[in-house]
Amino acid sequence: MKTINLKDKLTKITEYWSPKITGELNDAYIKLAKFKGEFTWHKHEQEDELFLVVDGELTIQLRDRNIYLTTGEFTIIPKGVEHKPVAHKEAHVLLIEPKSTLNTGDQQNELTKNQLDWV
Amino acid sequence: MKTINLKDKLTKITEYWSPKITGELNDAYIKLAKFKGEFTWHKHEQEDELFLVVDGELTIQLRDRNIYLTTGEFTIIPKGVEHKPVAHKEAHVLLIEPKSTLNTGDQQNELTKNQLDWV
Repeated sequence: MKTINLKDKLTKITEYWSPKITGELNDAYIKLAKFKGEFTWHKHEQEDELFLVVDGELTIQLRDRNIYLTTGEFTIIPKGVEHKPVAHKEAHVLLIEPKSTLNTGDQQNELTKNQLDWV
Repeated sequence: MKTINLKDKLTKITEYWSPKITGELNDAYIKLAKFKGEFTWHKHEQEDELFLVVDGELTIQLRDRNIYLTTGEFTIIPKGVEHKPVAHKEAHVLLIEPKSTLNTGDQQNELTKNQLDWV
């Protein structure tokens, strides 16, 4: 048991779209990531996913609309829903997902991270 | 799917030690609460519990030491670990716990909330 300071942990993350684990909670991981630019369209068949913006602005594109998040705001993308995160400027994001979640969901491409490190 | 603004939701909470649900993520609830004063010693036999301080300061007393949290910091109390949250001044806290979690864990007293509302 320890105190995790989100900003301190985020200073250690240098790569975009590469979530790092910063806690485990039951069957889920708490992750931190820096986003910039456009991610890939994907969905998670079995897992809801939470995005909390710690600093910056994040757009989650859905097939029929966009969700806009700024610092101190979160949304939950339910399982099965296609989405594409987009950050026009660097955004610092806390993610909560089951341990089984792959970052690119049902897609495998150059953005896929098959193994996640802790930060 | 919607945008949840933590500060906006917290303005709607008026009672201390009475978590309100603000999201569901797989088998967990995302909750918001205002803490002030001392809670009760308890543990959750089967469930880890996350405390993220959105605003203020929170001490989590353990039997052998204290964990200190300030704005932007979180800790995870593993299942089975006795703990007692204490907020010397009003603290705004995001909690993540399995849906099955009772706020007072293995204790039933006047602080127990058997039914939680959404905020």
